[in-house]
Amino acid sequence: MRFTSEQRLDDAVLEREFSLGEIPGILWTPASTSTSTSTPVPLILLGHPPLGLRKMYPRLVARARHSAAEGFATATIELPGSGDRPRWPAAEQARADLRRAMDAGEPVSDEIVDALVLPLVEKAVPEWQAALDALLSLPEIGGPVGYSGGVISIGIRLSVVEPRIVAAAFFAGSFVPRAMFEESRQVTIPLHVLLQWDDEGNDRQAALDLFDAFSSKEKSLHANMGGHTGVPQFAGDVAAQFFTRHLK
Amino acid sequence: MRFTSEQRLDDAVLEREFSLGEIPGILWTPASTSTSTSTPVPLILLGHPPLGLRKMYPRLVARARHSAAEGFATATIELPGSGDRPRWPAAEQARADLRRAMDAGEPVSDEIVDALVLPLVEKAVPEWQAALDALLSLPEIGGPVGYSGGVISIGIRLSVVEPRIVAAAFFAGSFVPRAMFEESRQVTIPLHVLLQWDDEGNDRQAALDLFDAFSSKEKSLHANMGGHTGVPQFAGDVAAQFFTRHLK
Repeated sequence: MRFTSEQRLDDAVLEREFSLGEIPGILWTPASTSTSTSTPVPLILLGHPPLGLRKMYPRLVARARHSAAEGFATATIELPGSGDRPRWPAAEQARADLRRAMDAGEPVSDEIVDALVLPLVEKAVPEWQAALDALLSLPEIGGPVGYSGGVISIGIRLSVVEPRIVAAAFFAGSFVPRAMFEESRQVTIPLHVLLQWDDEGNDRQAALDLFDAFSSKEKSLHANMGGHTGVPQFAGDVAAQFFTRHLK
Repeated sequence: MRFTSEQRLDDAVLEREFSLGEIPGILWTPASTSTSTSTPVPLILLGHPPLGLRKMYPRLVARARHSAAEGFATATIELPGSGDRPRWPAAEQARADLRRAMDAGEPVSDEIVDALVLPLVEKAVPEWQAALDALLSLPEIGGPVGYSGGVISIGIRLSVVEPRIVAAAFFAGSFVPRAMFEESRQVTIPLHVLLQWDDEGNDRQAALDLFDAFSSKEKSLHANMGGHTGVPQFAGDVAAQFFTRHLK
């Protein structure tokens, strides 16, 4: 991991861009955390949709600031095929098929969802794990580790295969392949699941079924009014409390 | 309204029992609230199931202490037919029918649910309104007013007919007559709805349908694992934040 830039945000947060091989990423730490004297802080991995880090930056930095105020480091990496990373023909094809189906008002087939999500999960999860290796080697970052938001199927797979992740907040707002419903039964860590009740791009019943499938002894579903991007501010506060309960 | 007893709990809460005509009740205020000098505090009406105030006291006083720490007064009254209040043959009959159906493992019919709940709503709601008149006449209690928990049908009716109630937290864990589903469409105040995902005495789908029916622009459903009485501590904290947002 190589840091490529560094800046302070309002004296409260240290933001550092990094490269992990070909993968760009950003690490945010509370400005009070110095490498020499402070106690290492817990880490939350910030998931996001595959729209590119640059586009997602305003929302990511808002989450990072909020988390830093609670004493957490946060980090994110660019997803494969997004931002400046090389395009990937099969994924481009799947996105085009999705767009065509939605524009035509047709139901999105299982085949499209599988082609869109499953290869992304296969590629992204080992990258998040490699990022975790690098991040946890920094003296200012300890554990435990949480995962928050983004493509829910990536979060599900990470929760199953990565024992260092001890709690996760999912956003039930994306297409979920049938295979991931099966896989979700293997999730046992504490979960906080956000659902936008009137999310135009999300099947509410599928989200409820997915929530039901998780085997976690502690899981909470928080449904709020509004569409995909209308998550109310207070819902973010409650998610922050979830991580404070489980990572501190 | 006549106060019949008064005690301080840990110097933090003043607990006063009262009679409102034939109806016993309890008022809890933050001990720092004096009648002469302090600002009047907002009020939360504490609903409860029809098991009698004495039986419900431990859970009620826990909610009252928590609310007092946040600067709220809380109050509750005995439901008609419960505790030391006169029994009421039709309600007794409905409860016996319910018990018989449940013991026999039979589905609880709409007739039983209607007989159990609708007369209770008809009798209880004007009593809560009378209590509200009396409580709001006390100098130490201002507004706004919230309603929390208990028989959800009572909460729905109160939210529809009582404009002084500006926010409500419901517990989706009791039998709901079909007529109340219609009435729930008239609810427009901000709502915080708790659902125990594996509540043995509650139809999960009915609870989700009821949540969907409310017309409130702000409504949140918080589902947690566990049975009817297994609401986790953190769910209470989140409900408290809901009232802080809306009553302060």
